[in-house]
Amino acid sequence: MTNDMAPEEFRRAGHEIVDWIADYLANIREYPVLTARKPGDLIDALPAQAPETGEPIERILADFREQVMPSVTHWNHPRFHAYFSVSASGPGILGEMLTAALNVNGMIWKSCPAAVELEQVTMSWLRQWLRLPEEWFGQIYDTASVSSMHAVACAREQAFPEVRTEGGMRGAVAYTSEHSHSSIEKGCIALGVGQNNVRRIGSDADFRMKPEALEAAIRADLAAGLKPFFVTATVGTTSTSSIDPVPAIADIAERYKLWLHVDGAYGGSACVVPEFNHYLRGTERADSLVVNPHKWLFTPIDISTFFTRKPEILRQAFSLIPEYLRTAADPRALNLMDYGVQLGRRFRALKFWFVLRYFGHEGISHILREHVRMAAEFAGWVGGDERFELAAPHPFSLVCFRMKAGDEATKRLHQALDDSREAFLSHTVLNGRYTLRFAIGNIKTTDEDVAATWTLIQRLASEIIA
Amino acid sequence: MTNDMAPEEFRRAGHEIVDWIADYLANIREYPVLTARKPGDLIDALPAQAPETGEPIERILADFREQVMPSVTHWNHPRFHAYFSVSASGPGILGEMLTAALNVNGMIWKSCPAAVELEQVTMSWLRQWLRLPEEWFGQIYDTASVSSMHAVACAREQAFPEVRTEGGMRGAVAYTSEHSHSSIEKGCIALGVGQNNVRRIGSDADFRMKPEALEAAIRADLAAGLKPFFVTATVGTTSTSSIDPVPAIADIAERYKLWLHVDGAYGGSACVVPEFNHYLRGTERADSLVVNPHKWLFTPIDISTFFTRKPEILRQAFSLIPEYLRTAADPRALNLMDYGVQLGRRFRALKFWFVLRYFGHEGISHILREHVRMAAEFAGWVGGDERFELAAPHPFSLVCFRMKAGDEATKRLHQALDDSREAFLSHTVLNGRYTLRFAIGNIKTTDEDVAATWTLIQRLASEIIA
Repeated sequence: MTNDMAPEEFRRAGHEIVDWIADYLANIREYPVLTARKPGDLIDALPAQAPETGEPIERILADFREQVMPSVTHWNHPRFHAYFSVSASGPGILGEMLTAALNVNGMIWKSCPAAVELEQVTMSWLRQWLRLPEEWFGQIYDTASVSSMHAVACAREQAFPEVRTEGGMRGAVAYTSEHSHSSIEKGCIALGVGQNNVRRIGSDADFRMKPEALEAAIRADLAAGLKPFFVTATVGTTSTSSIDPVPAIADIAERYKLWLHVDGAYGGSACVVPEFNHYLRGTERADSLVVNPHKWLFTPIDISTFFTRKPEILRQAFSLIPEYLRTAADPRALNLMDYGVQLGRRFRALKFWFVLRYFGHEGISHILREHVRMAAEFAGWVGGDERFELAAPHPFSLVCFRMKAGDEATKRLHQALDDSREAFLSHTVLNGRYTLRFAIGNIKTTDEDVAATWTLIQRLASEIIA
Repeated sequence: MTNDMAPEEFRRAGHEIVDWIADYLANIREYPVLTARKPGDLIDALPAQAPETGEPIERILADFREQVMPSVTHWNHPRFHAYFSVSASGPGILGEMLTAALNVNGMIWKSCPAAVELEQVTMSWLRQWLRLPEEWFGQIYDTASVSSMHAVACAREQAFPEVRTEGGMRGAVAYTSEHSHSSIEKGCIALGVGQNNVRRIGSDADFRMKPEALEAAIRADLAAGLKPFFVTATVGTTSTSSIDPVPAIADIAERYKLWLHVDGAYGGSACVVPEFNHYLRGTERADSLVVNPHKWLFTPIDISTFFTRKPEILRQAFSLIPEYLRTAADPRALNLMDYGVQLGRRFRALKFWFVLRYFGHEGISHILREHVRMAAEFAGWVGGDERFELAAPHPFSLVCFRMKAGDEATKRLHQALDDSREAFLSHTVLNGRYTLRFAIGNIKTTDEDVAATWTLIQRLASEIIA
């Protein structure tokens, strides 16, 4: 007697779902990438109250297909080119199924040794691919926002250890580029640095932080009696995928004793490819690094990896061992709860282990190279069409471009693309100009997809200019 | 041509995994709840480097079964009675499979309307079951640690709005009970309140915060020129599941204008049962509440729900809209990224929707009632055995007890239980005494399981005392 779904019922529904997923992924091009639904449509379509008595799983699955699916933006679609194009792979999805079934919480070693140790194994593997020094410690958080917040917390612990007990933090200053991710600013707000104490350093014509501007800002703050303590450099910024000059920033960080955090949430993934690894140059002198396997290493959302060469500072910042979790100390029995804000931890390493093994270093490198190659090809087409202009370099797989006819034309093109629901691009503003972002990152994207989207863009542009 | 696993290969492996999960869950009692492996065993068993070329999925699945599984602590085991006994249900696992496959990021409405709107639907359903006022806004984070950190952030934004921009926060004081969860203290450390500015208010003989001690502490702090701004009350503390007197604490919070956060991460779930709802009394006057469906509502890890009656304060604390995410404003198109530290959001509502619908209000209430009933029965047996004593009241499904013979005997009993690997209990320290915690929360736990564990405890106790 069990209160749960009967095993045979689970088995039947599970098989049905696997078939549905296999068909969905195989036929993904038949779905529109964007929904035609309007805000509130799904809410209005569903009952305002939960059911009083249980419902059969068949009915829930039918409603999933008929009600929920039409409101989905298909991140799996090979013509999803918005934001960063994030995609899971088959082995990643399979690993996630097992994580859901095991349903362990890896907060301490005893609560699930497999979760704690497989995390260390996969982090060591990724560290080697990234060519980080062996002494770097890696662990898994949920998102880059949380990883970067922990980087700021480490920096605070290093520079102002009294803040942990006394609170407050006056005059501390953090440095980012005007192109660094919003999560850095948010992390600084959360931790009490204050938004006004986050300096957004200017960038050069290629959207890379200017080291001389960074140093000038630090010197001005020091002269004003303030306390610089943190700087972040980005390898693959969100707007344009630009790469900050990490070695020059590392020089400055060392000179002024700042914690240097490298945000490689997107670009870091590409650095597992041997010929792209140089983009991380200088990171071996940084204090921490974030790379998100859910962005561009084909692992389902969410998984963000955080590496630091000073794990003892991270531990100092957050360890609190309540009595009900105290266990006998064994140096190999790591308690992950000591390394962050979150006590609970999903078994995220499992899906990543599936992905790393299924593709291997060669397989993953091949896919990433292909993405970069296809993006370069797309950029070539854009550059060869006199109606368009490239808006930024494209070291990775993101191409920024706009219509020469001006913002109004580019915005109309964007709206027409959205309305087509055949391809999904997002936008940014560069030097005050509305700019489209074409990102490749989906494991299923082919040359044909890229060509089809370019044909669509050309056709819509003709209608706008005509 | 695709770089991903072929659809038929995915289908085959997916079916194999579903069968494995169905068998695993059906035969869970055949597994030892705790592993016999030692720290480092799994790390030592696995290759130190990732594979250069890809490996077949069959080999990965075989290694999962042969290498990973022996290092798993089985949270699914019906005799897992440690910490809070957390368990997923069949429909929850099925929902998680679909979340992994869709792999959407619900950061803004456009990035996946289904994720954003189904979250609002399920939060409204849960709010109704909890009998919270209609104007309360609910949303989903990953863990209670993050939910509670956001509660502290709201409190800070309300009391010290200048901190968002200026940083620092001197003299702010937060209040918790000596039995409240460590995540409150951690959240205060993270946000720069400072550990020394967290007052741990004493509790009564039943481990409930003493309101008069709270008020005395606030008055003393005010007299010292400090600034009380936050108090948390717990409905189901971690050590003993005690319930703080929320109405009296709400009186004080109102009198001194503190943000009142109710931590119902565990106990809040039981309050969906009509006859247990009174345990939340006073919460309707609080400012925020956390309830974790992954704790005791049979939904896979992770999902933590955060309710507040002041969503505009939460939004004020965290909204930052970067250009590349700016979309046309529609009042019904909620952008979840504005409501927290994390930009990325998994589609967590889907699994919860599956659970709520599959069991319905009656079904879930039935399971929770059964857990509370079985715990009471277990407590009766403990109380009726002269070698044992109950150490705390058991309003929910957690029973705290110890051997009258003293700490040494209780510790030996605990070790013997661990060594048996037949049942898993955890411990705490109450009034300086080592105390065992027997928690029921697993959807598969039956009267027979509880009786078997009690028999085991009695037998081991006899060996220790003999």
